Amino acid sequence: MEIKVLKDILGANELIAADNRKLLDTNGILAINIMSSPGAGKTSLILKTIEQLKDKARIAVIEGDIASSIDAERIEKEGVEVVQINTGGGCHLEANMIEKALAGLPLKDINLLFIENVGNLICPTGFALGEHKKVMLSSLPEGDDKPHKYPTMFAQVDVVLLNKIDFEPLVDFNFQAFGETVTGLNPEVKIFKISCKTGAGFKDWVSWLEDELAQIKAPK
Amino acid sequence: MEIKVLKDILGANELIAADNRKLLDTNGILAINIMSSPGAGKTSLILKTIEQLKDKARIAVIEGDIASSIDAERIEKEGVEVVQINTGGGCHLEANMIEKALAGLPLKDINLLFIENVGNLICPTGFALGEHKKVMLSSLPEGDDKPHKYPTMFAQVDVVLLNKIDFEPLVDFNFQAFGETVTGLNPEVKIFKISCKTGAGFKDWVSWLEDELAQIKAPK
Repeated sequence: MEIKVLKDILGANELIAADNRKLLDTNGILAINIMSSPGAGKTSLILKTIEQLKDKARIAVIEGDIASSIDAERIEKEGVEVVQINTGGGCHLEANMIEKALAGLPLKDINLLFIENVGNLICPTGFALGEHKKVMLSSLPEGDDKPHKYPTMFAQVDVVLLNKIDFEPLVDFNFQAFGETVTGLNPEVKIFKISCKTGAGFKDWVSWLEDELAQIKAPK
Repeated sequence: MEIKVLKDILGANELIAADNRKLLDTNGILAINIMSSPGAGKTSLILKTIEQLKDKARIAVIEGDIASSIDAERIEKEGVEVVQINTGGGCHLEANMIEKALAGLPLKDINLLFIENVGNLICPTGFALGEHKKVMLSSLPEGDDKPHKYPTMFAQVDVVLLNKIDFEPLVDFNFQAFGETVTGLNPEVKIFKISCKTGAGFKDWVSWLEDELAQIKAPK
């Protein structure tokens, strides 16, 4: 019975995710689902990317958190449209939450939507939101063994951003082993080494985003 | 219906957790449930604590991971009894997993059991395992806003270990704000600043553990 209920929930989620995707496509919006451990730098990534892309893209953000609106407030200061979702204890975003958030955004005025998921390397993997691409952050202080321990997340994303490379002098991180494990799980993945603090590596990440934006059709 | 199923699962978990607790008490074993984000330092904490307490306590470890046995292998090298649980995708440990793991440990030969939960600040909060104390790690690179974002975890633990204080020169972390938010959520909590790398702060943490051990009754 439990399994049946879970299947029902996942099935319903997929249907709503497909509707979200249609709405995004109709409006010519590229949607990126950003996932990571707590504190790996999702909000800092979004802020730094806004700084670099604000003259080239019309950006909006959906902020997912269990509680608080700290992150949404940080983003609002940049003059970007933002909707806060509080899951009230829930460990991941679901498609129906995004459906409601999209209703609160000026879809005709944007072409790039960042969806910041709840900080969790496990539960978000099961729930499509309607996004075009999945991006995860992993950060140097978390250690190079994370792909072994959270393989489903690393296996399903389009991009791994290895953040906090400015911590390199302080940590013992085997870049080669990390890269080999990630590409072993996910041969097509792109890996970019970045620092949201210093801006290192952002050129390649922003260039990837611009390429993806170029492939989105103009709104119907 | 979903809610009813969830209540059934939680109720069944509580019953098994109570049985685990009885078994631990009968054998005079203090059990500590250790929780944190991925990569905050749970295994390093256990290794460093073993190093400092191995002459004073008879220690065993239950290692919870979604996949892999990397952590169990690291602990086994220290000559400590260890049982690996792989949850196969599950985002937290449950009492029935601990019940099985306890059956594989020489309970009469140990008096301190560390249970390393899956790296996740959300889902483990709902599942009692039979432990006597809950301890969480939060680490400097994760940022000082984590108590705002994951309040349930911070509210329910007995001890917060603020790890990686050796990163202080590199991060902008407001210790006072962090401490005030944590004690606001959880007035009885103990907070210890530590570094599993340098051993800083371990005196107070180990002293707390020894006090707790002294309160455990000898096996019946």
